[in-house]
Amino acid sequence: MKHKGWFISIEGPDGSGKSTVGAYIEKQLTEEGYSVLFTREPGGIEIAEEIRSIILDPKNTAMDQKTEALLYAASRRQHLIQKILPAIEEGKLVLCDRFVDSSLAYQGAGRGIGIDAVLSINQFAIEGHFPDLTIYLDLSAEAGLKRLKDRVFLDRLDREALDFHQRVTAGYQEVLARFSDRIVSVDASQAPEKVAADALDYIHQRILT
Amino acid sequence: MKHKGWFISIEGPDGSGKSTVGAYIEKQLTEEGYSVLFTREPGGIEIAEEIRSIILDPKNTAMDQKTEALLYAASRRQHLIQKILPAIEEGKLVLCDRFVDSSLAYQGAGRGIGIDAVLSINQFAIEGHFPDLTIYLDLSAEAGLKRLKDRVFLDRLDREALDFHQRVTAGYQEVLARFSDRIVSVDASQAPEKVAADALDYIHQRILT
Repeated sequence: MKHKGWFISIEGPDGSGKSTVGAYIEKQLTEEGYSVLFTREPGGIEIAEEIRSIILDPKNTAMDQKTEALLYAASRRQHLIQKILPAIEEGKLVLCDRFVDSSLAYQGAGRGIGIDAVLSINQFAIEGHFPDLTIYLDLSAEAGLKRLKDRVFLDRLDREALDFHQRVTAGYQEVLARFSDRIVSVDASQAPEKVAADALDYIHQRILT
Repeated sequence: MKHKGWFISIEGPDGSGKSTVGAYIEKQLTEEGYSVLFTREPGGIEIAEEIRSIILDPKNTAMDQKTEALLYAASRRQHLIQKILPAIEEGKLVLCDRFVDSSLAYQGAGRGIGIDAVLSINQFAIEGHFPDLTIYLDLSAEAGLKRLKDRVFLDRLDREALDFHQRVTAGYQEVLARFSDRIVSVDASQAPEKVAADALDYIHQRILT
């Protein structure tokens, strides 16, 4: 992919600190003089917002998991076409909180659809526009859920959630191995400032050289 | 695919008479004692209806063609899971006005995305549940559009130019060649009763033997 700007995604399980760490990275790179667009799907893009509202509508309990995966891919496509690619074309550094790897981990591994199957519909959606670099915030499912719920112990209902999130983190490990040239892993159990500093080191080494 | 009922789709360009011919087929097969479900996407399935309303909303002019193809596949998936497969399981004969081949012809060939690419996301969506038999109503793009002129309401897709519809009919021919075991072609320039009679002959010969 030949382009004028840069495209970086931030990935990780729930509770891994993507938005906090992303804000640190955005601030630092802006201070360094880059024009940074920090976004996440559906990103204010009307069609993507409408699609997302169908996915997240609590009354849509009958939604099939593959329907959900197709809708995520559709929302991603529209966000990419209307927001990410034009910004890259303008020379911006696009920082995206979750992108294709989230679907591979959540729908592919977490929901059990399979990483290859979910990758195939996402390849249709993104047409080769993978991020230049992906920062994976590495944290165990248990630690992520504890941060989210602000609880020391997980009760029985949370246990189901934990099983799902363990499949997600295992899925992320498989995605990391498969795209080892694109994805770097940062220890997300550290303080957010330190996580951001580690991520910024990778960003400087890998794509802003 | 092992199932208890039957699954027949009716395909063809706009104006080829799918709904009229489908109604004749439904009436005849019902009289023969079959429990017929005549449906078309989104088919009253709430999630599929919501998806379809995004596709057809005239204000969504920024919709990318691949987003549209993903949304059609998502709507198809939900209609299949919630309506078609349960009916087949109950032993019904499901007659569906448009199914996967419409996306191959309209999005794949008409929009220029490519039949293979659109087939790949639809294979994800339908998981091998192709119709047992597909009736293709063969009519030229010109003849189809002339018939449509009488209609009061034309949606966004109907307003496309003749050359689009010519790409669609050419796409259908490619789909027919590719799935020649599943799809039969009927001359749709005949009177609807005769078209239906020809289609019923195929249905009896091929799947109700």
